[in-house]
Amino acid sequence: MLKKVLLFGLGGAVVLTVGILLGHFGIKDDSSSSECAQEAARDVDENFVTQFIEEVAAIQIEENLRTLTRVPHMATTAGDEATVKYMLSRWQDPDNGLDDAWREEYKVYLSFPNETVPNKVTVVSSSGSVLFTGTEKEKPYGPEQEDEAVVQPYAAYGPPGHAKGKLVYANEGKVSDYEYLNKTMNLAGTIAIVKYGGAGRAAKAINGALFGVAGVLVYTEPRDINDGKMSDSSETYPHSWYLPPTGVERGSFNTHFGDMLTPYLAAKEDTYRIPEADITGIPPIPIQPIGFQDAYELICELDGPGAPEAWQGAFNCTYNVGGPGFKSTSKFNSSDVQLDIYNWAELRNSSNVMGIIRGSVEPDRYVIYGNHRDSWVHGAIDPSSGTAVMLEITRVDGRIVVYVTGKWRPRRSIIFGSWGAEEFGLIGSTEYAEEYQSKLRQRTVAYINVDISVFGEHLLLCSCFRRSVKTPASDLSVYDNWIRYFNRTSPTHGLIPQVPYLTGAGSDYAPFMHFLGITSMDISYTYDRSKTKARIYPAYHTAYDTFDYSSKYIDPGFTSHQTVARVAGNVLLRLADSLLLPFSCSDYAESLEQYLSTAVESFNEKLTLPLPPPCRSWCARLHFRFFFCLRPLKVRGINDQLMLLDRAFLDPLAFPEKISYRYRYTKHPINIPTPLPLHFPIRHVIWASRSSSVATFPGLADAFEQAEKTNLKQDWDQVHKQLSIVTQAIEGAAHTLEEVI
Amino acid sequence: MLKKVLLFGLGGAVVLTVGILLGHFGIKDDSSSSECAQEAARDVDENFVTQFIEEVAAIQIEENLRTLTRVPHMATTAGDEATVKYMLSRWQDPDNGLDDAWREEYKVYLSFPNETVPNKVTVVSSSGSVLFTGTEKEKPYGPEQEDEAVVQPYAAYGPPGHAKGKLVYANEGKVSDYEYLNKTMNLAGTIAIVKYGGAGRAAKAINGALFGVAGVLVYTEPRDINDGKMSDSSETYPHSWYLPPTGVERGSFNTHFGDMLTPYLAAKEDTYRIPEADITGIPPIPIQPIGFQDAYELICELDGPGAPEAWQGAFNCTYNVGGPGFKSTSKFNSSDVQLDIYNWAELRNSSNVMGIIRGSVEPDRYVIYGNHRDSWVHGAIDPSSGTAVMLEITRVDGRIVVYVTGKWRPRRSIIFGSWGAEEFGLIGSTEYAEEYQSKLRQRTVAYINVDISVFGEHLLLCSCFRRSVKTPASDLSVYDNWIRYFNRTSPTHGLIPQVPYLTGAGSDYAPFMHFLGITSMDISYTYDRSKTKARIYPAYHTAYDTFDYSSKYIDPGFTSHQTVARVAGNVLLRLADSLLLPFSCSDYAESLEQYLSTAVESFNEKLTLPLPPPCRSWCARLHFRFFFCLRPLKVRGINDQLMLLDRAFLDPLAFPEKISYRYRYTKHPINIPTPLPLHFPIRHVIWASRSSSVATFPGLADAFEQAEKTNLKQDWDQVHKQLSIVTQAIEGAAHTLEEVI
Repeated sequence: MLKKVLLFGLGGAVVLTVGILLGHFGIKDDSSSSECAQEAARDVDENFVTQFIEEVAAIQIEENLRTLTRVPHMATTAGDEATVKYMLSRWQDPDNGLDDAWREEYKVYLSFPNETVPNKVTVVSSSGSVLFTGTEKEKPYGPEQEDEAVVQPYAAYGPPGHAKGKLVYANEGKVSDYEYLNKTMNLAGTIAIVKYGGAGRAAKAINGALFGVAGVLVYTEPRDINDGKMSDSSETYPHSWYLPPTGVERGSFNTHFGDMLTPYLAAKEDTYRIPEADITGIPPIPIQPIGFQDAYELICELDGPGAPEAWQGAFNCTYNVGGPGFKSTSKFNSSDVQLDIYNWAELRNSSNVMGIIRGSVEPDRYVIYGNHRDSWVHGAIDPSSGTAVMLEITRVDGRIVVYVTGKWRPRRSIIFGSWGAEEFGLIGSTEYAEEYQSKLRQRTVAYINVDISVFGEHLLLCSCFRRSVKTPASDLSVYDNWIRYFNRTSPTHGLIPQVPYLTGAGSDYAPFMHFLGITSMDISYTYDRSKTKARIYPAYHTAYDTFDYSSKYIDPGFTSHQTVARVAGNVLLRLADSLLLPFSCSDYAESLEQYLSTAVESFNEKLTLPLPPPCRSWCARLHFRFFFCLRPLKVRGINDQLMLLDRAFLDPLAFPEKISYRYRYTKHPINIPTPLPLHFPIRHVIWASRSSSVATFPGLADAFEQAEKTNLKQDWDQVHKQLSIVTQAIEGAAHTLEEVI
Repeated sequence: MLKKVLLFGLGGAVVLTVGILLGHFGIKDDSSSSECAQEAARDVDENFVTQFIEEVAAIQIEENLRTLTRVPHMATTAGDEATVKYMLSRWQDPDNGLDDAWREEYKVYLSFPNETVPNKVTVVSSSGSVLFTGTEKEKPYGPEQEDEAVVQPYAAYGPPGHAKGKLVYANEGKVSDYEYLNKTMNLAGTIAIVKYGGAGRAAKAINGALFGVAGVLVYTEPRDINDGKMSDSSETYPHSWYLPPTGVERGSFNTHFGDMLTPYLAAKEDTYRIPEADITGIPPIPIQPIGFQDAYELICELDGPGAPEAWQGAFNCTYNVGGPGFKSTSKFNSSDVQLDIYNWAELRNSSNVMGIIRGSVEPDRYVIYGNHRDSWVHGAIDPSSGTAVMLEITRVDGRIVVYVTGKWRPRRSIIFGSWGAEEFGLIGSTEYAEEYQSKLRQRTVAYINVDISVFGEHLLLCSCFRRSVKTPASDLSVYDNWIRYFNRTSPTHGLIPQVPYLTGAGSDYAPFMHFLGITSMDISYTYDRSKTKARIYPAYHTAYDTFDYSSKYIDPGFTSHQTVARVAGNVLLRLADSLLLPFSCSDYAESLEQYLSTAVESFNEKLTLPLPPPCRSWCARLHFRFFFCLRPLKVRGINDQLMLLDRAFLDPLAFPEKISYRYRYTKHPINIPTPLPLHFPIRHVIWASRSSSVATFPGLADAFEQAEKTNLKQDWDQVHKQLSIVTQAIEGAAHTLEEVI
């Protein structure tokens, strides 16, 4: 077992804490005579928070997890439906439930392997004999892997089809990887074997197709996931947390999130759907994920020169790039690798389960707390560790709302979302965000996601709870432990936790953050990076991500789960119940200043234009006003400014729709790329993902990279345009921090 | 002089009036003990409104107008700068001014005629002799027309160039007009003469170019503007309000609004600008406006068959369509018409003048009141009638804020905007809306425009002021007079004023309404349509739109101006000061129901899909809640719902950017249409303009028209898509009317 560190989004906001206290007493003083005015001025109830933290029980979380992971529950399967019913029964429970709970369905486009004709990877000799057949199922070490509902490993949204060709090893399947190979060999008609990491799943195939690659195998490199361990007789699960040799990471092979047939529209029964043939951003050629046992068989037989040092892995052989094809001395000699893929797709009804605790003073302001419910197999860690935590939070909140305080309610409404079909591309949360976009954009204070990701958040939460939650193993607070592992020095606050920016789309925060501009955080625990180099926990998306695995090797006693529940629940209560939103404007300003100084360093030499204005004076405006704003409407005004700050960075036209492949599987070796728009639901001009490695404003960084490469006037014009877009957004955000004008 | 009727946006909201009273007393009752709570619960001060109405003085408006129209004040000229200084001096006046006033500059792309080489229209014989030369300047009847600053009539944004060809008469320059001609003649290389009306100014040239037309003349048909009157010795100005024979309507020949080089971005010094060559939506061929004196000379000499009855006009000849070219018996015989256009464009600094009265209770909520300041010539009516009214409103408001009540302030902030360069395409207001889009979208309760347009508004204002303002000529209230001329029967309220929908882009409300989704109204007076068929007041955009003209023939005594000031100021005060926003949700719902029933009638036979859900139950939600919402935060919540209702209909991707002509003048006869996006700042899925004649959801109506024409599957798919877009928007708006979820 590895030592775990708890990570979550939080930051130093000492100044804001003072502000809150002032506001608190100020308001009490000002309108204390009327009961309703008192209610409007009430701040978060510390006793209630303390009680919440005390009541969170590890044993309850363990039981939640046991129930949730009894059977595989891939989206829209019978196992998934069972979890829907379970969530509803818990949230509708009259004793420990919420005010209300219900199900919301969408009709979404999902991709599956063929149950009767499994996908097949073979090595076929020139005479047609099959010399090797890839493993179809992961090896069972317990009853879980033998469950009939375990889905065969496959690349969701990879097209059906047959591809046959000489094998090459293409590292991570990045464009630069294929470019490297393309210098010395003709990739047309080859099958590329690549490892996970470095490029998105779909990109590995899209990039390959650009070079004429006919099919792709993707495997999990033991050096990246298992610290090199490979033997299942002693080293891998069930002997440790490491991935067994036949374990295969499943996944959605797409570029963007949301239902693919209904971009920007909620996928209801009658919604317009684009033609399947117009889907873009998914593999144009057959692709199949495999375990490292099979990868070993193939890679170690490859001919050709040795791959670069950085491409080497843990197998006890030199990784060659391929002749293309196998060594003449190999048992596979001049054989081809063949992929026979039978994936298919159809519309399925997928459910979100929603629950609510109504707010007392400002019920029209929402804090949303969510996680997906669907897994690839049993999903004990992804996502059920998060769901088990969410259920414990709702149990304690629900119990206290109903029984302990009788009529206690948070100031704002809390909405819980158990999203469906996340594994296929954040579908449940995206459809929800699309359907309710107006209301959510107008009213949502923050979105909290607890799945398994390790990203943090940029709009830092205040440190009011810095002593409230202890780490599982010691008396050290989570806050101090965080600083111990990841910290930074803030000009304003000194040494504080380092919180990564939430720029990716790794979980359900993405539609809230990137499409709606709602301040979001993603909370998770992770392992001590000094003890393992694992890219992610080794059983990720495999049939070994089970209750047994989690309770033995991830969190025996469930105390880390308990700590996450305490931290996340604490944050949730403070967001929902604080008089003033516990957001730190100064931290946002510091992040932007960081981006600015990076942009100056990286671009200034080649730019004659001014960069966006500095943000460091932003917060003075808010803080100054604090001392004068003692009335409910003033407080609401400031909260609205904080809530809407992120929204000021939305620009629906900042990132023009990109051109991508049309989904159209033609006979190998070449799929003709027909240009079609890649629907791009990213609108946040600060936190959008970027391909450039320069950590600054994403549109600017990407445009600059392109312009430097081509040095074309039209590309430098795009740099100018992106600069104008981000400048206008930052100035717009600054305007929203002015009280009046 | 013609009888005038006062038109403005307002509607029957009896239920809401009751609501306001209930809310009012309720709140007083609930939190009366604290002074600040009392302030938060205070409703509009009726005494103050009465005082405002009494103090508005016709003589003040007359003096304002005299000062504003002393010299021509086309955008960015010396005359314009003088009006900037005048506005600033008035709003910064310590006695009658506002809390603050300032200037905001944008660098915008404007088009002008060449001062030293005037545009020329000639008839040239085959031997090269000039047989006719068009009038260069409008005939002077007083010193105003002799002012050196009077700009030569021209088509702003029409390209420079020379075009020569046989003349044809193409009615209004609609696609259908050119199609009609194209059936019997080859239009390639011809010069088309068309009249104003029926199609947008730029469209007349864009449409013509599609058929190979080389140049366009556009004239004002006396039947449409002068009730057929043509003689300046007795019938036209200075003998009446009718347009003299040499009068020419100037205008901006563009398709959409805002600075053309900076779509979606505020045109600041360093802002990215698209290349001039990429401008779309403007004439691709030379075009020049002319007076009816010149048009008469040309049209009555045309050869060819007689034009259709509907194309005929007031000239004492048959309007033939052209041979192409002139009759063989004509003095012009086989001559060509030649256009020599020397228009040019450059970046100019254009100013908005801004002013503010800060709000007391909710200073972070804005009511914006605006009008443009720039004219084509003296602009006594367009726009100075509106500016003179605005200055009188600010004088009375400012005086009362400072002197009469001492510390009276409206509940919300009032922002006044005197926009620059509207005549070139609503540029000042659009750049303002782009620069401050985040803040304005978050905070603006309503936008009121008082220019000269006759459009009303859909989110109707309450009828609280129905007896407050009388018509100038009688004791009849404006409200009752409105009903007399334009009325409709509402299912909820009975006989109420008919308010047209604000779907066009005729004045500065467009960026607020269509780009930002801010509830807008446009207030103006108009003439009695039973007494004249004039398309608009005859001196529109000519050198005859002067103080003399206005004070003699439009509003002697300035009592109509006074009435507009009273009505607009009254609306403004109620929007700014009412506890609950005087918006009628039920009226909005009735408008949508009207659209729905039109869609059912027109489309249902060919649609198998359900139309959007009914809206008639919308308002029950709000009204029901009224009786329980007696606290400031509840009131703010409801006001936010009302304020944000229009925002729920914004969809930045609802109308994909259209393909339009690249601006590139090549040698006639044909300009090759290079496809480039037409930047389309229209985002409101209900009130966007449409080309279909079916008065329903614009995206749906246009898609349906296209699909019916082609019957292609892909076009029917677009109908489905537009249906999904409008359904999602309407459902989204309904969600925002729910208090919690």
